[in-house]
Amino acid sequence: MNINLTLRILGSLLIFLAIALLFPIPFSWFYGDGATGSFLLAALISAGCGGLLLKLFKSEKDLSVREGFAIVTFGWTLFALFGALPFIFSGAIPSYLDAFFETMSGFTTTGSTILINIEAMPPSLLLWRSLTQWLGGMGIIVLSLAILPMLGVGGMQLFKAEVPGPTADRLKPRIQDTAKLLWGVYVLLTGVEVILLMSGGMSFFDGLNHAFTTMATGGFSTRNASVAAYNSAYIDWIITIFMFLAGVNFSLHYLALRGRLGDFLRNEEFLFYFGLALGGTILVVLLNMQGVYPNFLDNLRYSAFQVVSIMTTTGFATADYELWPVLCQYLLVFSMFIGGCAGSTGGGMKVARILLLFKHTQVQLFRLIHPRAVRLVKLGERPVDKEVMQSILGFFALYLGVFVTASFLMAAIGMDLTSAGGSVIATLSNIGPGLGSVGPVDNFAHVPAFGKLVLAFCMLLGRLELFTVLVLVFPSFWHK
Amino acid sequence: MNINLTLRILGSLLIFLAIALLFPIPFSWFYGDGATGSFLLAALISAGCGGLLLKLFKSEKDLSVREGFAIVTFGWTLFALFGALPFIFSGAIPSYLDAFFETMSGFTTTGSTILINIEAMPPSLLLWRSLTQWLGGMGIIVLSLAILPMLGVGGMQLFKAEVPGPTADRLKPRIQDTAKLLWGVYVLLTGVEVILLMSGGMSFFDGLNHAFTTMATGGFSTRNASVAAYNSAYIDWIITIFMFLAGVNFSLHYLALRGRLGDFLRNEEFLFYFGLALGGTILVVLLNMQGVYPNFLDNLRYSAFQVVSIMTTTGFATADYELWPVLCQYLLVFSMFIGGCAGSTGGGMKVARILLLFKHTQVQLFRLIHPRAVRLVKLGERPVDKEVMQSILGFFALYLGVFVTASFLMAAIGMDLTSAGGSVIATLSNIGPGLGSVGPVDNFAHVPAFGKLVLAFCMLLGRLELFTVLVLVFPSFWHK
Repeated sequence: MNINLTLRILGSLLIFLAIALLFPIPFSWFYGDGATGSFLLAALISAGCGGLLLKLFKSEKDLSVREGFAIVTFGWTLFALFGALPFIFSGAIPSYLDAFFETMSGFTTTGSTILINIEAMPPSLLLWRSLTQWLGGMGIIVLSLAILPMLGVGGMQLFKAEVPGPTADRLKPRIQDTAKLLWGVYVLLTGVEVILLMSGGMSFFDGLNHAFTTMATGGFSTRNASVAAYNSAYIDWIITIFMFLAGVNFSLHYLALRGRLGDFLRNEEFLFYFGLALGGTILVVLLNMQGVYPNFLDNLRYSAFQVVSIMTTTGFATADYELWPVLCQYLLVFSMFIGGCAGSTGGGMKVARILLLFKHTQVQLFRLIHPRAVRLVKLGERPVDKEVMQSILGFFALYLGVFVTASFLMAAIGMDLTSAGGSVIATLSNIGPGLGSVGPVDNFAHVPAFGKLVLAFCMLLGRLELFTVLVLVFPSFWHK
Repeated sequence: MNINLTLRILGSLLIFLAIALLFPIPFSWFYGDGATGSFLLAALISAGCGGLLLKLFKSEKDLSVREGFAIVTFGWTLFALFGALPFIFSGAIPSYLDAFFETMSGFTTTGSTILINIEAMPPSLLLWRSLTQWLGGMGIIVLSLAILPMLGVGGMQLFKAEVPGPTADRLKPRIQDTAKLLWGVYVLLTGVEVILLMSGGMSFFDGLNHAFTTMATGGFSTRNASVAAYNSAYIDWIITIFMFLAGVNFSLHYLALRGRLGDFLRNEEFLFYFGLALGGTILVVLLNMQGVYPNFLDNLRYSAFQVVSIMTTTGFATADYELWPVLCQYLLVFSMFIGGCAGSTGGGMKVARILLLFKHTQVQLFRLIHPRAVRLVKLGERPVDKEVMQSILGFFALYLGVFVTASFLMAAIGMDLTSAGGSVIATLSNIGPGLGSVGPVDNFAHVPAFGKLVLAFCMLLGRLELFTVLVLVFPSFWHK
């Protein structure tokens, strides 16, 4: 571990955060909400701490894999710790733990909130809240398509960005180039969504906030009733479509924008993702037909929105799915584990991993019948390396292990079983709302302090694909 | 597939079943319960069908792996189909589906019952019910230690019986020899338990029944209130100890009887199993201290009994754990998935598989830090082959997949989520009682017909380690 280099890079990240903290200031002026000073002070403290790290620690060495793990984990944690400051300074969230929970929920694009009355918040702080999600989403795209494949985490090698260079179909090897291209797509899609939402009657402020949190599959809203507040079929459908797009591998979007639309149809993960969303919606529509929504178009609108929102781990709500038939809830709970595509901003275990688990099991069955035959697990045309498969299987076991352990802790502090499991999967899969007392029309304010820490840690673990965080607890990680 | 040979062997199994069906007849005479004719008729039909199969199908070829799968799966199914006959002929269970469910629950050592008033049944039929479990347990020991390792199912290669021959520590290669030695242990332990239960005041009939179903980790009782009916601390502790023993690999018992007691302490799976039972009991005792059981000895007695009963997948009850603190129920639910040791009569995923999953995940984390280091997953001193590890990981994924699919089906026929999940895990892990409407003081009589079929299939799947049954649905299994 090169601690000097790690601290230097964390310093630059804090300076980047300080710049981001200036972004809500014009909105604070415009709305006269009096939060300008809080943002300036927070930016000053972040920049100061960042500068201090840069000044104190010098290193000329190159980054290695170990520093990668530490920078990603501590970077995200620092963002949550410092990004919480404006909420405290402005007095909008009195408890630092609550502010930290809310900011961790932002940067991890989770969307769980401790706010009871969102609409009473100063607008610039709401914008900051949405911006934390958007920046988190930006980080995740690069993390999953450029950084984690290098670190070899949980089989992410498979999902390396296939972003071609300007001249040939060659991979751009440097993280920065990949990042710029993918971020271009991210910014473009966000811009288009803002325009479409505004043309449906949203204000620029609301449109910007919701576009930020849709593209990040974050799910923070500026309204207490979430997207239901707009009561507009047009807005519901726009958001459904963009949630769906945000759950797709951004490499595919990039290729599509360069004219290679056919790549969508050749990508097995995308097709499986599309099939799950479509199949899930059809099932939920059928189940909701009797009793819940007699009108077919309403049924389709609310069912599709909720299915896509949960599947992509966005967490916006236009209906209280806890009032739907038990079987609908069952479907939603299981899609909470699956999540979006690898290389998207969506959380969960990722569609590709689930697909590969299926295929692995199929191959195992096949091999029992034909012990001498060679059959490999493939994703698309490419055979999946055995090491990668082992890594994915380990990820699956670890995901369930963390789920079991964390929900045990939540039950230990007195939550009922549904709420304990629901709050853990909602945060571990970076969805936002869960079940029981943390359902789609509730919030996390009532969770005891220890529980908030457990859930904030779950958000971090889930967002960074578990391994990235957990390697740090190995003593041997810190040895020379 | 050699269909002739398969049918021949199934024919001999039916003749074996016919002989077993004669066993309850002396009890029927003794109690004068009028069921003798039912047993004779059932035995006649079984023997007739078995004889017909032997007469019609001739084959001189040797058994291959494929026939192994078919014989095991269809053998268990035929036992349940023909073993159900005495219940129908005597009129004790009017519906054939119910009788089939009860008998499948017997031969798979599950213990879920559709009987509402057990004590109203003719004694000889209760004995037959217990005997199905005891015979099922006998089958399972040989299946898991001699047959499945040969077929290569779900990593069972690892748990091959280490039963030494009479002269040296060499493995006896033939199934029959291994079977005889292990069955000797099984019969011996059953006999000792009968004597110990009788010395605690049980009648010979009750002692025999409970010893049969304890050693099989089956859990059928002759009393409506299960073991609670005897209200004796001595009997509770005897059964706790024998349930624990029944959840241990029978190879270890064999070695211990030959003086190699130290092998218990060198067996990593046993130590983990012991640790789980001890740790689980301590936690549940602590949680039950306030309110549930103020008296420490009562607390220990009831907590240990329920933990060991669920963990070993026996399913006897002396307390309604659904009235215990939420966290106790949470612990019990997770031990439902784990189950007993490989090579025991216990169900579930098996302690060794869970242990290896832990180790696999640890090795994955280690390899992220030390990409060039070689570290293998080991069980005890032996490194675990990568193929075996893949097989275990596939088993784990398949287990959860079956759990999710089956509980979806149970919810689809209108069961609430707790009862749907609870009934599936209770049958898939071969425990018996589940949660919700199929909890420890309820029964399965009210489950709709389709649900009973799903659950009976779960019993079979779980008992035969999933793969054994599921390979049969591959069309290529049936090709030449």
